[in-house]
Amino acid sequence: MSEIRSELGWSTRERITVRGKDLPGEILGRVNLGDMAFLELTGRLPNEKESRLFNAMVVTLVEHGITPSALAARLTYLGAPEAMQAAVAAGLCGLGSVFVGSMEGVARMLSENADVEGMKRVPGLGHPLHKPVDPRTVRLFEIARETGFYGKYCRRMEEIGRHKNLVVNATGAIGALACELGLDWRAVKGLGVMARAVGLVGHLLEESRQPMAEAVWHQIEDQATQHLKK
Amino acid sequence: MSEIRSELGWSTRERITVRGKDLPGEILGRVNLGDMAFLELTGRLPNEKESRLFNAMVVTLVEHGITPSALAARLTYLGAPEAMQAAVAAGLCGLGSVFVGSMEGVARMLSENADVEGMKRVPGLGHPLHKPVDPRTVRLFEIARETGFYGKYCRRMEEIGRHKNLVVNATGAIGALACELGLDWRAVKGLGVMARAVGLVGHLLEESRQPMAEAVWHQIEDQATQHLKK
Amino acid sequence: MSEIRSELGWSTRERITVRGKDLPGEILGRVNLGDMAFLELTGRLPNEKESRLFNAMVVTLVEHGITPSALAARLTYLGAPEAMQAAVAAGLCGLGSVFVGSMEGVARMLSENADVEGMKRVPGLGHPLHKPVDPRTVRLFEIARETGFYGKYCRRMEEIGRHKNLVVNATGAIGALACELGLDWRAVKGLGVMARAVGLVGHLLEESRQPMAEAVWHQIEDQATQHLKK
Amino acid sequence: MSEIRSELGWSTRERITVRGKDLPGEILGRVNLGDMAFLELTGRLPNEKESRLFNAMVVTLVEHGITPSALAARLTYLGAPEAMQAAVAAGLCGLGSVFVGSMEGVARMLSENADVEGMKRVPGLGHPLHKPVDPRTVRLFEIARETGFYGKYCRRMEEIGRHKNLVVNATGAIGALACELGLDWRAVKGLGVMARAVGLVGHLLEESRQPMAEAVWHQIEDQATQHLKK
Repeated sequence: MSEIRSELGWSTRERITVRGKDLPGEILGRVNLGDMAFLELTGRLPNEKESRLFNAMVVTLVEHGITPSALAARLTYLGAPEAMQAAVAAGLCGLGSVFVGSMEGVARMLSENADVEGMKRVPGLGHPLHKPVDPRTVRLFEIARETGFYGKYCRRMEEIGRHKNLVVNATGAIGALACELGLDWRAVKGLGVMARAVGLVGHLLEESRQPMAEAVWHQIEDQATQHLKK
Repeated sequence: MSEIRSELGWSTRERITVRGKDLPGEILGRVNLGDMAFLELTGRLPNEKESRLFNAMVVTLVEHGITPSALAARLTYLGAPEAMQAAVAAGLCGLGSVFVGSMEGVARMLSENADVEGMKRVPGLGHPLHKPVDPRTVRLFEIARETGFYGKYCRRMEEIGRHKNLVVNATGAIGALACELGLDWRAVKGLGVMARAVGLVGHLLEESRQPMAEAVWHQIEDQATQHLKK
Repeated sequence: MSEIRSELGWSTRERITVRGKDLPGEILGRVNLGDMAFLELTGRLPNEKESRLFNAMVVTLVEHGITPSALAARLTYLGAPEAMQAAVAAGLCGLGSVFVGSMEGVARMLSENADVEGMKRVPGLGHPLHKPVDPRTVRLFEIARETGFYGKYCRRMEEIGRHKNLVVNATGAIGALACELGLDWRAVKGLGVMARAVGLVGHLLEESRQPMAEAVWHQIEDQATQHLKK
Repeated sequence: MSEIRSELGWSTRERITVRGKDLPGEILGRVNLGDMAFLELTGRLPNEKESRLFNAMVVTLVEHGITPSALAARLTYLGAPEAMQAAVAAGLCGLGSVFVGSMEGVARMLSENADVEGMKRVPGLGHPLHKPVDPRTVRLFEIARETGFYGKYCRRMEEIGRHKNLVVNATGAIGALACELGLDWRAVKGLGVMARAVGLVGHLLEESRQPMAEAVWHQIEDQATQHLKK
């Protein structure tokens, strides 16, 4: 049986330690939230170039406007405004195989050098709106070049896109860049989850000031049941 | 009835806009994850000093070791490793009145200049372990002084602490600093929720490599039911 | 410190025991799901009359059509169809103070014999649609009379409704009946949570066959951002 | 694009209709919670034999003692006792591929007549504790015989168990019985989710009276970090 053991953080009366570093002395005031996420995922702080690229990747994922996830969070907040953490949780629950999961799929595909010929649907390709290019991918690969991280995984992803004649979307770019940074593919879905948590807090603050959830509910309920109420 | 309307983000074929800014052109590569959170909560990017302080505040909240929230996330992951977003969600669900909620209480108390005499329990004071000072508070107020944000709300919080003869803990400091930055008290619990989402992803990555949840389960089940199995 | 100890269920090689009863021998095939819930909440099986009333109460709460909770579950399922448990969880997260919480408020108010004069808003009264009577209340109190459980709490609730000139809604009736059955008011919100979990599974099955979530998303996104896309 | 349309429930001023039936007149007082679940999943009320079998199936799944799911719910409740719905939600989030998912796997395998030879791990077989028989399976198949539902799917499941020399566990039995009742395999995981929601409410009521979560937390935190605190 596995041992009950964790290396992430601990405290004594005088010290608070995270990942082996003194939180007040070595972390606070020195690192930003993205760097802290990098520390959590890799056990070390990023250098300046890694920090710039990694922050750009997660920042890309924060805000996508009125998504199913944002709507789920807002509708939850309508019923339980006293528990906004549960509304964020509800919004995160839908970050599964359909939306954010593709990023994990890309990272796994590239890191395991999977054969894309046999794949029915290659993750990270195609976008309903952004054609012929996804402007986020263009910018992320530009930052990767500026920081020296545009390498074999990015090239491979662009090659696959050309081969399939589909745009490399933002999740495709981020999956490739996660490989360039040496992140474990099992952590890659987590990038989307943490970033979207930030965005969902923004949605709930807007919902508390300028609510839409009740109007959404009544409108959809009317539409969905009008054939029954005649 | 309220209108269905949001200002947070939108896209057209060529452009992706967040809070009125061009995401690829004006945000990516220029701001870190904490700054992006600040943009989500206030509608504008922070200046350098605001960025340093705000990032320190949220970074403080990322990792607290083996908390009830981290345990809930790990136990959830044990049953549904294919849905790590749901494990993060489970961990967030417990960030309610007992732990993270005190931060919101502090921000509200200070921003509404509440009468603390009448309060049975003042939020943001006392710590079971860190006495006579919470080293995070010391450091956060130091950063506040360095950035020019140590002001009336911090002073008031320290005054309340002395009056009640209790240490101002990290949630007390962060609640006060949120007021100094002009954040809406309704957004303050959200600081803890977003930060902890980052930390929970770290816990789940550790759990995937060095699992403890199954051992925790068996150990606790044995303890809890041994009086029945005799 | 509290002890780690639970009385609810345990197993040995040959026996599976729930609340002191042999699950295969004394429970399976003999009790229905509502009776099992009664056993979980009270530690004993209901008699025939209690069973009839308790089942009616929870059955009332299963299905309310397209609610915010059902929409949150469907929108979550759209993104993570492989994790339907997380979609049910998302739907439950919104059963807070605004919708289901009123039932708990009624049970507490009646069991503690609270003074309703001083209350700004009495829980369990009023309905936007069902006026001058809520047909569920009529029927539930009828069943209560048939089973001998129409007593002082029901009378008090109807008296309060007449006094405030508002209809006793279904949550008002169920809160009163929970008191008649001697249930702990802290368990009363749980009646709504368990019942709605049943209903949400129904919604997700319908969603898997006749999806609406994607259409809801696109329609609301268009409405919410059309003022920005001009 | 799909239409926004639902058949589950709707209301007018005088009527509340669920699945085409008048809720007060045709459902309340006549059906139990398990029958209501059957109605939600199939669109019709069960006859007496179906009711007995279906209720036995879901009742089996309500209470399994101190599971990872129950622990996650209790640890969540510790931090947010004001939001018990979120604690139930947290507990449900872990009902994924490892525990409850096997039931869905069984129903799919049997309904699609899958070739078990090629399967590395056949769902519904084996149990760490209950050997050589799972007493729940024995009892459920007995009830199936009494109600006339012991048929080809049950026989096939038992045949597979003998072939693999493993016990047919409760999820194996329930998966087979779901096929005998003609339930959609996509609804089968939902049986576990709804049943466990009932059980989790029971755990949270016990936790509110006889708490263990705080003791669990401190015990595990000590164990997990003692190697770091020397």
